[in-house]
Amino acid sequence: MTMRALIQPVIMSGGAGTRLWPMSRAARPKQFLPLVAETSLFQETAMRMTSDEAAEFAAPIIVAGEAHAEIIAAQLKEIGVSPAAIIIEPCPRNTAAVAAVAAAWTAKMRPGALCLLAPADHHIADARAFRAAVAQGAGAASKGAIVTFGVRPSEPHTGYGYIEAGAPMAEGVAEVAAFREKPDLQTAEHYVASGRHFWNAGIFLYAPEAMTGELAVHAPAIGRAADAALRDAQSDGALCRLDAARFAECPADSIDYAVMEKTSRAAVVGPLDAGWSDIGAWTAIEGGEQDARVAAIDCDGVVIRTDGPFVGALAVSDLVIVATKDAVLVAPKSRAQDVKKIVEELKARGRRDLL
Amino acid sequence: MTMRALIQPVIMSGGAGTRLWPMSRAARPKQFLPLVAETSLFQETAMRMTSDEAAEFAAPIIVAGEAHAEIIAAQLKEIGVSPAAIIIEPCPRNTAAVAAVAAAWTAKMRPGALCLLAPADHHIADARAFRAAVAQGAGAASKGAIVTFGVRPSEPHTGYGYIEAGAPMAEGVAEVAAFREKPDLQTAEHYVASGRHFWNAGIFLYAPEAMTGELAVHAPAIGRAADAALRDAQSDGALCRLDAARFAECPADSIDYAVMEKTSRAAVVGPLDAGWSDIGAWTAIEGGEQDARVAAIDCDGVVIRTDGPFVGALAVSDLVIVATKDAVLVAPKSRAQDVKKIVEELKARGRRDLL
Repeated sequence: MTMRALIQPVIMSGGAGTRLWPMSRAARPKQFLPLVAETSLFQETAMRMTSDEAAEFAAPIIVAGEAHAEIIAAQLKEIGVSPAAIIIEPCPRNTAAVAAVAAAWTAKMRPGALCLLAPADHHIADARAFRAAVAQGAGAASKGAIVTFGVRPSEPHTGYGYIEAGAPMAEGVAEVAAFREKPDLQTAEHYVASGRHFWNAGIFLYAPEAMTGELAVHAPAIGRAADAALRDAQSDGALCRLDAARFAECPADSIDYAVMEKTSRAAVVGPLDAGWSDIGAWTAIEGGEQDARVAAIDCDGVVIRTDGPFVGALAVSDLVIVATKDAVLVAPKSRAQDVKKIVEELKARGRRDLL
Repeated sequence: MTMRALIQPVIMSGGAGTRLWPMSRAARPKQFLPLVAETSLFQETAMRMTSDEAAEFAAPIIVAGEAHAEIIAAQLKEIGVSPAAIIIEPCPRNTAAVAAVAAAWTAKMRPGALCLLAPADHHIADARAFRAAVAQGAGAASKGAIVTFGVRPSEPHTGYGYIEAGAPMAEGVAEVAAFREKPDLQTAEHYVASGRHFWNAGIFLYAPEAMTGELAVHAPAIGRAADAALRDAQSDGALCRLDAARFAECPADSIDYAVMEKTSRAAVVGPLDAGWSDIGAWTAIEGGEQDARVAAIDCDGVVIRTDGPFVGALAVSDLVIVATKDAVLVAPKSRAQDVKKIVEELKARGRRDLL
């Protein structure tokens, strides 16, 4: 029997979620909203990292901006989770920096543990299946692989990156043959048909030493800046503020570009069959017609959400309608991805109150 | 030169305006909203009755429910109009009762004046042309005619009653050959083509004695109850509260059914060419895309109104979108007449706060 590795969850909460405007706002982006359940996506994510027979999780660390420190503490308190640390990024530096900081923190504070890097704003319906997938990847990660998680594509989505699985490594784990950037529709259809291509869920499992080593080879400036920013960080209770000057020197790059597409250590657990969705647009959220604050008369295929105002929809089809106290969105479902255009217009008008 | 008759304006403010939900509410129906101008339709109506070279108007009387006494007084004050009276109906009894009360009030308080009965919730772009039309009808009214005003139909509208003009009586005035109820589309198209059929604008000009006489013949119970309710009314400053028990005895009927379709005294001024609209639905109101609280991106033919919340519309066409602090409406323009369905749904749910 092999010894079970401790998993150190690292919840990345840097997303802005502009495609879920007007509910998602700068001060309260989508991960903090109860969009799918009564708890927020962030709370769901934290609760998902609960030890069970498959895997053992340490208290999570959260990486986020200063603006969200308060809501993070409050939402964790609501669900009874005590974070190991809330690491504050003085400026956004994308996911490679987070992976580097997480590796450095874990190597120092939880020697022997594996880092599980996970976005705060995804929905995973089946938390148990998710943990089982993490456990499946843990063996490879313990041996030095940087493990990704691949979702079987349900449609030829052109907005996601794809992972092409290669030679099997263990039960449910394979080498990565290639990372494929956002494809055109024809290519995406080919991927769906192949059975070997998965959506990249943006979740990573790795031993800190493996990530540190790959960063040193492929993105040394990121590793150095992250290490220095953490070394000179200021602690304030659970808050750990990375050193602003050091962190500012860190190149902003995604973990995918900076490491995954270059390393030979990439592995993939797949398919992750746990009801994954990144809630990338309003269309990822069901109905809303059952809400007592909604009347949809002679409507078909509408997504209606409100956090207060009553919404009366009459004889409309395939629309997204979202109402908040100070802003309303109306768009066809087919254009739900373009909601950020309205956010851009608001920026251009200087309406910071609505962002 | 004939002596110019004094005109006694009687503004009927009993409408509910449910087709303009969610802005039009029970406590503040559409006549009190600044829908077209910065002043409300009610204020526009009162300001329209201003003496000029064509006609002389007495201070108006307003007929309305108790719930609106306060807003009426406030809105009149805003525009510097002192009403001769605000006559409060203890219960709604439709327009024939108002015509009867107006006749009785005017006969007593303004002997020799003609009553001009006008709804509070219509828009008339050209007030001067309106007054000229009133002056045109005054001669016939002084001789005992009950004068209606006919709008040249711009489309085969099936939601209006039509007036068929008969033999000419004077410049711009004709006998009424027939009142035609809401027609089917084919009939309405015939009316539009004929040149002899007008929309019934719901405005009436008459000598009190003429109306009293016709009521005595065609609807005696209405005339009796209205007279008694006014006789036993309680005065309270400008407020005149009709006696509740007497007024309750009054049959509820429209002036069209109770008198106009039966009398031989009906005349019509037409065409009334003054930019008339009854603002019967949101589609009667233009655009809204210029409002700083609206962003309509890649939209076409939308009507967007807000009294507070920001509205972001993306890639939608021919929709009506109306936002208030507590309710939002989305419907195709082609179904704007059916907005009352949502109001009915709200009634069924007991949501009086939204009515």
